Amino acid sequence: MDNDDVIFKQVPKGVYVPGQDLVVEQSTIDLHAPLKEGEFILKNLVLSVDPYMRIFLENGVLKPGNVMGGNSMSVVLRSNNPDFQKDDLVYGKIARGRFEKYSLVSAEYAKASYKVRNQPKQTGLPLSNYCGALGMAGMTAYGGLLKVGKPVAGETIFISAASGAVGQLVGQMAKNLGLHVVGSAGSDAKINYLKEIGFDGAFNYKTDDIDAKLTELCPNGIDIYFDNVGGVMLEKAIDHASHYARFPICGAISQYDDLKGGYPIKNFHKVMSKAITIQGFHFTQYTEELEEEFLENVAKWLNDGSIKYAESISEGIETMPQALLDVMEGKNFGKQIVKVADL
Amino acid sequence: MDNDDVIFKQVPKGVYVPGQDLVVEQSTIDLHAPLKEGEFILKNLVLSVDPYMRIFLENGVLKPGNVMGGNSMSVVLRSNNPDFQKDDLVYGKIARGRFEKYSLVSAEYAKASYKVRNQPKQTGLPLSNYCGALGMAGMTAYGGLLKVGKPVAGETIFISAASGAVGQLVGQMAKNLGLHVVGSAGSDAKINYLKEIGFDGAFNYKTDDIDAKLTELCPNGIDIYFDNVGGVMLEKAIDHASHYARFPICGAISQYDDLKGGYPIKNFHKVMSKAITIQGFHFTQYTEELEEEFLENVAKWLNDGSIKYAESISEGIETMPQALLDVMEGKNFGKQIVKVADL
Repeated sequence: MDNDDVIFKQVPKGVYVPGQDLVVEQSTIDLHAPLKEGEFILKNLVLSVDPYMRIFLENGVLKPGNVMGGNSMSVVLRSNNPDFQKDDLVYGKIARGRFEKYSLVSAEYAKASYKVRNQPKQTGLPLSNYCGALGMAGMTAYGGLLKVGKPVAGETIFISAASGAVGQLVGQMAKNLGLHVVGSAGSDAKINYLKEIGFDGAFNYKTDDIDAKLTELCPNGIDIYFDNVGGVMLEKAIDHASHYARFPICGAISQYDDLKGGYPIKNFHKVMSKAITIQGFHFTQYTEELEEEFLENVAKWLNDGSIKYAESISEGIETMPQALLDVMEGKNFGKQIVKVADL
Repeated sequence: MDNDDVIFKQVPKGVYVPGQDLVVEQSTIDLHAPLKEGEFILKNLVLSVDPYMRIFLENGVLKPGNVMGGNSMSVVLRSNNPDFQKDDLVYGKIARGRFEKYSLVSAEYAKASYKVRNQPKQTGLPLSNYCGALGMAGMTAYGGLLKVGKPVAGETIFISAASGAVGQLVGQMAKNLGLHVVGSAGSDAKINYLKEIGFDGAFNYKTDDIDAKLTELCPNGIDIYFDNVGGVMLEKAIDHASHYARFPICGAISQYDDLKGGYPIKNFHKVMSKAITIQGFHFTQYTEELEEEFLENVAKWLNDGSIKYAESISEGIETMPQALLDVMEGKNFGKQIVKVADL
C-alpha cells in the first residue's frame, strides 16, 4: 500500500518554507504483514497543525529526515498489543503522533507517544475536536487560564491571537468564569467572530491603535494577559497591566522565525514596579492533575453550546506543509486541522 | 532647635544628581512645644538608603517639595499618643520614615508610617540592622526567596548585585537551605566578600565574561535567578535558565535612570520554551504572613553568626543625597545606612 509521509527535511533558514523544510514523500507499507509482539497499525485520521511546530523544527525535538510529528487522532486497524486494540481510537501526543497515512507502531514508541482515547464514541463530537478543543490546544487553554492566570470573577483578561486555536477557548472559558474578556486578532472577520462567541471587546491589531484600544476596552487595566504572540503586544500589555497581573505565556508566534534576535521588550522594569508575574508554561505541567476534568468539562461545554470552536480543516495530508505556513501567517481561521481520512 | 531635613527638590532629569534633586535644608522645630492629641516627637537615628528610591522620585510615591521618606529607626522623645510611648524604638516604613533629624508626627501620619519595634532592646543587635537585614531589605530577601524563588535543596541560585543590601542576605539564606549559590558584583573586593560569606561561586560582571562564568559556575543551569539589576544580566540569566526556573524580580538598578527606554530584552521567547516564571514582587505582599517569623529567624541568624551582614554607614544626615548616588553607582559596600544620631 502506498503511504504518504510528511518528512521534516531541513531546519528552516529563517522563514519557514513549505515544500522545502517540510515535504510530503511517498513510501510503502504492508498493512497485512505479520505484527511482532507489541506492534500495531494505525490509520491516521486527523492531524493538528500548531504554531509551536516551528520551534520544534529548530530546537531538536524533531530531527531532520524523520516523519513529522504532532497531535493526531487515529484508529487501530490491526494490533498485537493488548493496550491498543482493534478499533480503538488513539490520541497522538505533542510531536509524537506520526504525520503519515498509516503507521506501524512499536510497543516502545507507543508508550511515550499514544494514548487510547475512545471518548468520541460516547460524546459524538467530531474527531477533529480531539485535536483541538479537546486536545493540546484545549488543555493549554484550560491549564494556562486556571493555573497561571488564576482568574477571579470581575477581573479583566486580554488575549492576543484570540481567534486562534487556544485563544478562542481561553476567552469563552474566562467569560464563563465571570471575567471581562478582550481579544486582539488580525482581521475584521476574526474580530466579528470574537464578538459572536461572547468577547466583551475585540480589536484588529493590524489596523487599530493598540494603546487606544487597550485603554478603551480595558478601563480598569489588564489583570490577566494570555499571551500567544510575544513581541510588541507583550510590551503593550505590560504598559496596560494592573498591579499583581498574571501573564500566562503560551506562545510567541511573532518571534518564531527569528529566535536569535527577537523583538526587544523595552519596558521590562515595570514587571517589578507593578509586581507582574510572567509565566511560561507547557500544558504538560498540568496534564496529570487536570486532564480528566478538562476532557469532561470541555466535552460538556461543546455539546451544550456554551463553548463554540471554529476549526479550519484542510483536506488531504499533502496540504499539511502549507497549513503550517498559513497558521504562522495568521491566514487560517480557528484551529488548523488536516483531515487525512474518514474513520 | 535647628532641624536638618532632606528635601525632595525635583524629579531627576535622567541621571540622579545629589544636591540638586535631593537637597539638605535647615528648618526649626520646638522639641518642647505642647503636643496635640496623638502627636509625638521622634529623634531619628538611622536611615536606610536604597536604590528603589530612585523610582519613587519619579512615579509620584514621593512628591517634590516634601521631606524625603524611607526606612528608618527612631526613638520617641515625647508623646501624646498611647501607641507610641516615650523611649519606644520606632520603625519607619518604606517611603514614610521622615529623613530629618527630628520629626513631629501626627496620629494620622503615624498610622500608615510607623511601627513600634522594640526588639533591638532584647536582641542587642545594632539599630542599623533594623534598617537592613531586619528591615525592608531583609524582608525582601526572605519573602522573595521563599515565596517567589520556591527554593529546593540542591538547586542552583544566581544572584545579581549579590553583595548589596538584599543580595548578600538571599545568598546566605539560600546557602542555609542547601542550594548551590552563585553571585555577581562589580568589584573584586565584593567578589572576595561573597566567597567569605559562603557563596559557592562569584564573578565580577565588569571584568569577567558573563556567559563563560555562568556556564562554569552554574553547570546545571540556573533554577532561581534573584534579579536586582535587570537589563543585560536578566537576558543572560534567561539564556542560562533551567526549565521551570523561577526569577524573583527584586530590582532593576541598571534601568532606573532611563525608565522610558530601558535595555531591550531580546530573548524573551525563551520564557515560554523553558517555562520560566518571572515575578516582580513587593516585600509588602508577604509582610503580614511572614514578618514575625522573619524578624525572629534573621535576628537569631545574625546573633549566631550564620548570617553576616555588611553595612556601609555614612555619618550625618547631610551625607544622604550622595549616599543614594553611591548606591546607584555601586560604590557602596553592603547595605547603605546613614547614621543621624546616637540613641
